[in-house]
Amino acid sequence: MSSSISAEQKVTLLRKYMKDLQLDAFIIPSEDAHQSEYVANCDQRRQFISDFTGSAGFAVVTQQEALLWTDGRYFLQAEKELDSKVWKLMRMLEDKSLEDWLVDCFIAESPQTVRNIGMDGRFISVASFKRLEKTLQDKGSSNASLVLLTIGEENLVDKVWGKDKPPIPKSLVFLHSEEYAGESVKSKLARVRESMAKNHCNLLIVSALDEVAWLFNLRGSDVEYNPVFLSYAIITDTQSLLFVDASRLEKEAQQSLNEQNIQTIPYENIFQVLQEKAKGCKVWLDKNKGNMALYQVCQNAPCEKIVEKPCPISWFKALKNEREVQGAKDAHIRDAAALITYFAWLEHQVVVEKQKPTECEAADVLDSLRSKQNLFVSLSFPTISSVGSNAAIIHYRPNPKDCKRVDNQHIYLCDSGGQYRDGTTDVTRTLHFGIPSQREKECYTRVLKSHIQMDTAIFPKGTSGLALDCLTRAPLWKVGLDYRHGTGHGVGSFLNVHEGPQSISFRPSASEVALEPNMLVTDEPGYYEDGAFGIRIENVLLIKSVETPNQFGGKPYYGFEHITFVPMESRLIDLNLLTDEELTWINRYHEECWSKVSPYLKDEKAFKWLQERTRPLNK
Amino acid sequence: MSSSISAEQKVTLLRKYMKDLQLDAFIIPSEDAHQSEYVANCDQRRQFISDFTGSAGFAVVTQQEALLWTDGRYFLQAEKELDSKVWKLMRMLEDKSLEDWLVDCFIAESPQTVRNIGMDGRFISVASFKRLEKTLQDKGSSNASLVLLTIGEENLVDKVWGKDKPPIPKSLVFLHSEEYAGESVKSKLARVRESMAKNHCNLLIVSALDEVAWLFNLRGSDVEYNPVFLSYAIITDTQSLLFVDASRLEKEAQQSLNEQNIQTIPYENIFQVLQEKAKGCKVWLDKNKGNMALYQVCQNAPCEKIVEKPCPISWFKALKNEREVQGAKDAHIRDAAALITYFAWLEHQVVVEKQKPTECEAADVLDSLRSKQNLFVSLSFPTISSVGSNAAIIHYRPNPKDCKRVDNQHIYLCDSGGQYRDGTTDVTRTLHFGIPSQREKECYTRVLKSHIQMDTAIFPKGTSGLALDCLTRAPLWKVGLDYRHGTGHGVGSFLNVHEGPQSISFRPSASEVALEPNMLVTDEPGYYEDGAFGIRIENVLLIKSVETPNQFGGKPYYGFEHITFVPMESRLIDLNLLTDEELTWINRYHEECWSKVSPYLKDEKAFKWLQERTRPLNK
Repeated sequence: MSSSISAEQKVTLLRKYMKDLQLDAFIIPSEDAHQSEYVANCDQRRQFISDFTGSAGFAVVTQQEALLWTDGRYFLQAEKELDSKVWKLMRMLEDKSLEDWLVDCFIAESPQTVRNIGMDGRFISVASFKRLEKTLQDKGSSNASLVLLTIGEENLVDKVWGKDKPPIPKSLVFLHSEEYAGESVKSKLARVRESMAKNHCNLLIVSALDEVAWLFNLRGSDVEYNPVFLSYAIITDTQSLLFVDASRLEKEAQQSLNEQNIQTIPYENIFQVLQEKAKGCKVWLDKNKGNMALYQVCQNAPCEKIVEKPCPISWFKALKNEREVQGAKDAHIRDAAALITYFAWLEHQVVVEKQKPTECEAADVLDSLRSKQNLFVSLSFPTISSVGSNAAIIHYRPNPKDCKRVDNQHIYLCDSGGQYRDGTTDVTRTLHFGIPSQREKECYTRVLKSHIQMDTAIFPKGTSGLALDCLTRAPLWKVGLDYRHGTGHGVGSFLNVHEGPQSISFRPSASEVALEPNMLVTDEPGYYEDGAFGIRIENVLLIKSVETPNQFGGKPYYGFEHITFVPMESRLIDLNLLTDEELTWINRYHEECWSKVSPYLKDEKAFKWLQERTRPLNK
Repeated sequence: MSSSISAEQKVTLLRKYMKDLQLDAFIIPSEDAHQSEYVANCDQRRQFISDFTGSAGFAVVTQQEALLWTDGRYFLQAEKELDSKVWKLMRMLEDKSLEDWLVDCFIAESPQTVRNIGMDGRFISVASFKRLEKTLQDKGSSNASLVLLTIGEENLVDKVWGKDKPPIPKSLVFLHSEEYAGESVKSKLARVRESMAKNHCNLLIVSALDEVAWLFNLRGSDVEYNPVFLSYAIITDTQSLLFVDASRLEKEAQQSLNEQNIQTIPYENIFQVLQEKAKGCKVWLDKNKGNMALYQVCQNAPCEKIVEKPCPISWFKALKNEREVQGAKDAHIRDAAALITYFAWLEHQVVVEKQKPTECEAADVLDSLRSKQNLFVSLSFPTISSVGSNAAIIHYRPNPKDCKRVDNQHIYLCDSGGQYRDGTTDVTRTLHFGIPSQREKECYTRVLKSHIQMDTAIFPKGTSGLALDCLTRAPLWKVGLDYRHGTGHGVGSFLNVHEGPQSISFRPSASEVALEPNMLVTDEPGYYEDGAFGIRIENVLLIKSVETPNQFGGKPYYGFEHITFVPMESRLIDLNLLTDEELTWINRYHEECWSKVSPYLKDEKAFKWLQERTRPLNK
């Protein structure tokens, strides 16, 4: 996105608006009012103000400074994109945290005056706000005051953005048929109400876009790559209110809502309607997904109490039903066919035709092949097509202006996925079309060992993703290698490619959710050598019950079934580093790739490529 | 401990005292006023009231019911010891938690009346109390009221106990010389005050007995197996107050305190003195170790604020200095010599002499051998000497009246340790003096694989014990085996055999502390087959920096150095289940056992036994 004013002008203007409201600092999160990871163009406030295009992080502007915090996946990218004359990069887990910076630097600077730290309540979750508030209290910062913009007041970044700000999206909202959803809206609403009763609540606010979409079996395209639409829902014992403009509903979608007596209300009326409805109610508002503006409205209503637990839909959605599991498997096979056809084409270009397509040209071919698959709707995220040192930028996205070319000298990392009517895919393969260095082979093989370690893990009911994260990393740790991202995330069912509540990660939140059968998770360890190359190997795995020779304590034991079938890069494997079990795993996996995907290949080159790439390897 | 009245009489009397105070329930924790794991006889209130002798758990008595909660280590033992006509066993992580039981059963029973749930503030930590309070609130139990006994009021269980209650211990308090402590009291106090200043506090309450002992380089023997003495300390910017009767101090101890101007005050005056001192202060009271009575006194003083973070001593104490590390290593070698001499004797008794010593007779021989080692002070916990099915009782303690005999038909598990002036030891070996079953061999070998998995783990700075717990269990999980206890705990330096803050465990608290060099932890996976046999293999490991071929992100990588040197049971190893790396590990470990311990063996049989037991194994 290009903007008509410079980084410096934008920040200067923002500082003026801050002064008008007597704000000493203004916090600009990446999230929209629904705590979405990917947001509509009109909600890309943090990107607009800072020019940093990564999906995670937040900006803080004071009268003196402008800082951007982001995590390890984005350090290199942020360094490239931020105007260093205006912005300072704050590396999460390395530099001071926001709270520490506020206390140690910002507030300590003028210990005698109260510092007003402003933010828009719509864009900060209840949990984040309270955490910030508590941390400041604990640190004894009595002269820091958190100030939320009045509900209805224009956001300060929006004011700076002015007429350049993109309009609120109004994509068509369409039915996600029960054939793929596997459960009726009626049944879903009944389960939600049952959970409300169990938790002594009589009003549930559904705020996450994918949760609204899941609940009503509806999809849209307001946010690129995520088949969701800007909306809220309020469920009471007797009413189901969907906050979306009725004019956006496709006829079948409207019909389905009518059948269940679901009332539609314009999106922007949420705060006003909630103010009435919440009065005297026992409200359920997920503190991690609900925003502070909703919370304030409930408090002001006033409601009787607010339960802040995770929304029950988050859990229902994570546990795929039989139809969704089958859909995910089917989608992954078709997706693999597209990817294999693409890799065969790319290798032919480089090795036989001696061509060097750019990262973008290559990605375009892949995107086009994928789009021809049955039931394809869109990509599930921007294709990462990256060569050599670009592959070390974890969430790299090639830019036609300055991207590299694919050749036989460098590693090629491709992370991509699609939204299909029957499922969402996400797969990464790292290839080499020539003779890799011993260093590249060693690192690839270590990452592969980690990938296999997770794929073959068996664990008892109750095990969390934090535990499995460590297990997966262990083979890399043995030689001092690691990666600065989680090991895996949940995957939606024709929904967001990243979904919770489960995750395989070192982050504390990963310890709060036990892994359960019928969840989907990715298995994507990596290794990134800045300025040189990057490696990631990613499959989607289905959690399932497994039979073990013993069953200690009568507990069920769980394991994984991979549903991604694209071969590994044999040229990058150092067979000497593999155990016999690991080699057997690879050969079996390749057999599966061949038997499952070859029937779907229409292209002779792809067929031959797959045949070649799935031949048994021997030490 | 025998008591003169029956289980039923005790509970009946307690109910009467509860009625007098209008309490509907009374909670009796295992802990003393210092949140100790092992407590003095006079503090064994939960054991007295319930007859359950395990080290962990708590009792709740209502007018209708009497319940005892304990964890997996103690299920079998509790079933044996509780009078089932009076008491009901509540299995932690299997049955309802205390909070759930209170809400779902106890309070729900009479929704119209307020239920007074009483406890003695001295015996519940600030964190436990607040957690209970918050959980009841969150569950919407507005008709539950938590009632703390007035400070100074006699504990209700003590009233029941009456004249049978043992007196408060007054063991000699003696100096732990700098030769072994490795740091002067002056230096320790300076570090504590530095930490107080950094945390904006001017009064620190030291409540944990081992923290007081560590800070003043003093030791005692008030609590069996733990070289501590009943005491508190208050540190302000200018004063160091030690709450212990001066008459108990050995001359050198008194002298050392005088040199540092440390004032002694009678133990029972803590609440009264704190009330004066805390007034207007910024108090630091570790919420997990400080009790609610201390907290109430600070609030009433009133103090300015209470910081509830972990006491800084907990962390200082966990990071052993050079002298303490050397002491631990030396103590473990002498300890291994005693244990090897014992095992050699036991095997000779069973195999050559065809004798079958009882578990107790055998333990007595071990205890006697250990007590002859240089610098021995006491055992570090009661020796677990267990045969066959008794070995499946995790914290089994043989009773001369009904213990089994060691023979060549059953597994023999021995978990024991000593307190030496230079260090504390803790080691478990599982042996077989005949021909074990294939089942026993398989299980032993899987446990050994888990043990080696932890011993050889390499992990980056920042990794917690929760992560390593999963890694250690993985080889057992592969075949559906597991164990109902943590994988490891910190070990004191001539202090408690269990110490924090680190632990290798699936419990959430294990994720809160990153493992650091110079910590000691045990590596003790196990497997227990109820009614059949039990296996545990335990070494003490020292965390240290390791060199790795890579060092991703410039982070230090850590690993372990085992400091326990007692051979594994070759008869129980199924070589076919081991990888080549694991077999190499065992042979190297046995070489170390031989070279380090053989010079210390005075007994010919022990020397030969060790020689035999450390011969290289081959597939």
